[in-house]
Amino acid sequence: MSSTSSVRLAVIPGDGIGGEVTTEALKVLEVAAPEGVRFETTTYDLGAERYLRTGEVLPDSVLEEVRGADAILLGAVGGKPNDPNLPPGILERGLLLRLRFVLDHYVNLRPSKIYPGSSSPLANPGEVDFVVVREGTEGPYTGNGGALRVGTPHEVATEVSVNTAFGVERVLRDAFARAQRRPRRKLTLVHKTNVLVHAGAVWWRLAQEISAEYPEVELDYMHIDAAMIFMTTDPARFDVIVTDNLFGDIITDLAAAITGGIGLAASGNVNPDRTAPSMFEPVHGSAPDIAGQQKADPTAAILSTALLLDHLGHDKAAARIEAAVTEDLAQRVPGAGPTGGRRTSEVGDAIAARLA
Amino acid sequence: MSSTSSVRLAVIPGDGIGGEVTTEALKVLEVAAPEGVRFETTTYDLGAERYLRTGEVLPDSVLEEVRGADAILLGAVGGKPNDPNLPPGILERGLLLRLRFVLDHYVNLRPSKIYPGSSSPLANPGEVDFVVVREGTEGPYTGNGGALRVGTPHEVATEVSVNTAFGVERVLRDAFARAQRRPRRKLTLVHKTNVLVHAGAVWWRLAQEISAEYPEVELDYMHIDAAMIFMTTDPARFDVIVTDNLFGDIITDLAAAITGGIGLAASGNVNPDRTAPSMFEPVHGSAPDIAGQQKADPTAAILSTALLLDHLGHDKAAARIEAAVTEDLAQRVPGAGPTGGRRTSEVGDAIAARLA
Ligand SMILES: CC(C)[C@H](C(=O)O)[C@@H](O)C(=O)O
Ligand SMILES: CC(C)[C@H](C(=O)O)[C@@H](O)C(=O)O
Repeated sequence: MSSTSSVRLAVIPGDGIGGEVTTEALKVLEVAAPEGVRFETTTYDLGAERYLRTGEVLPDSVLEEVRGADAILLGAVGGKPNDPNLPPGILERGLLLRLRFVLDHYVNLRPSKIYPGSSSPLANPGEVDFVVVREGTEGPYTGNGGALRVGTPHEVATEVSVNTAFGVERVLRDAFARAQRRPRRKLTLVHKTNVLVHAGAVWWRLAQEISAEYPEVELDYMHIDAAMIFMTTDPARFDVIVTDNLFGDIITDLAAAITGGIGLAASGNVNPDRTAPSMFEPVHGSAPDIAGQQKADPTAAILSTALLLDHLGHDKAAARIEAAVTEDLAQRVPGAGPTGGRRTSEVGDAIAARLA
Repeated sequence: MSSTSSVRLAVIPGDGIGGEVTTEALKVLEVAAPEGVRFETTTYDLGAERYLRTGEVLPDSVLEEVRGADAILLGAVGGKPNDPNLPPGILERGLLLRLRFVLDHYVNLRPSKIYPGSSSPLANPGEVDFVVVREGTEGPYTGNGGALRVGTPHEVATEVSVNTAFGVERVLRDAFARAQRRPRRKLTLVHKTNVLVHAGAVWWRLAQEISAEYPEVELDYMHIDAAMIFMTTDPARFDVIVTDNLFGDIITDLAAAITGGIGLAASGNVNPDRTAPSMFEPVHGSAPDIAGQQKADPTAAILSTALLLDHLGHDKAAARIEAAVTEDLAQRVPGAGPTGGRRTSEVGDAIAARLA
């Protein structure tokens, strides 16, 4: 006897290589799904192409449909750089960030690991295995700010970073809980408290308060500039990093770079309270320059499905995907480029085959 | 017959290793000075110790004296981490940033180069030689912002990044002019225009406008997160980078790390209009953990005196310091630590001896 449960998955392939990597991610997800779990996917055509065709970024009706899903899988969003018909940030803010904000993805989860066979640009990276918990719903990403006397020599443009005790506390709690569950139990808060003193004070105060509830977690603080140095000279020292939205954006691309490239970096935009679906996506962008050529590495999208399964409670299936990816990485032809000389679909096939 | 000119130099050794590295910088400056140029130094006791003793950070009378100097040499500022008697940022904002703002150091100049013998954590860094022009008087460093309901669960803390056409244009002009004088003539604007759309728009618009006046300079744009990737995978591609105050803080520490460490990174806080003295300082901090032990590498402070001499028009003397440092670096004992196994004073002696 077996019961069947069905997971409603909203799929947003997006732009550029987004579609190609999403196809492979779904291929792997299908094979990796635990017995009795079925994915019912609905694909949403959103991104640069739709905007250029219709002027729509994310219609409210689509948003409401997506909100009804159990999880979201996103490829990548973004048109050609400097396309005069695409105002800067229109897709990023109107689609990606809107989803993160409206669906309250306050934990942006970005693990970094050096897999055997993956190539770090560092000569001696050591054993790197950490996760960045990036705040996802406030900080400098709120769209607060504006501009006066635009286009004149007297223009003044502001950007406002908004940090609430509510928003900072909940992401810190998530990070402490994650650190507590990991063997090393280390948490590093990254900020710039010596310059951004108002925001810094609320992060630092709450980190210290919550720290008292987690005596086993060692709390450490590092300025964002110092974090640049440690990330390149001793990344193995990190276990869990918690930081604000913008610092998190910056540090996770660096983390991806030093652990073998953006082709491997997965992420989850998580709503830990489960009041809305969480969204899983590779950290990389839409790479319009190589779109449609089957050159993109789908590994980051595939690893994002592992985060998705883990979030849905299927941690064993998630671990199997990670193991299959690890094996695939270990046997990629060195020097043959990110996919090991294979087409995008061949990488997906190979990883799916290991799971079958 | 020889005429003598005298340069009034304000020296702020600061905290921790600041005094040790400044001593060596002055030693080298003395020997390197062109014939007939004499440095009249006045030392100002400012920093954590003075604050803890007297409650004073930068008395107005001292600021007025310093303003009368021809140039400023600074060691490093900052007390012990988490000293309960030192409110976070009090020295950074009250002393270092106050000097940068009041003396209108709108060009924060930070060159990065891989010297022969210097050790990069990157396996294959390539030939790295670029300079970051970091805006120094606005952006998220203005101290704008504040906090409401401090210490309560309803706290809201904001940080405001202020960007004026006036401030952005002048630093862009400086960066274009520098790029024009360099053989490769490449300028990369680093920002996050897809999220920080108001600030991003003024940077991007002015960069394009000024670009028309510099047809020989190739202008490129990169998001700060993408810059993390290129800085670790292909740093040799950069020539001149221009960016805002906070992105510049972050990227220059990364640049220092990948070119052999913060012990070599020099900087100039430059007022190109010469309405006030410019200030030269190593990028590194006060490193209280190794203070007073003659373990610090004074090379960054010494290279900062080369920037100082260059700013004062003594470019030949500046080049001689750089050459002496290059020679010293090339013969440091590999694996013997940043100073090549020598005491701080021995490094200064060795570099001074090459110049004598
Ligand atoms: C595309 C962009 C808006 C986005 C961000 O800045 O968060 C991306 O860089 C990321 O890290 O997911
Ligand atoms: C000490 C600190 C305020 C300073 C800065 O953020 O500018 C330092 O990191 C630097 O880069 O000079």
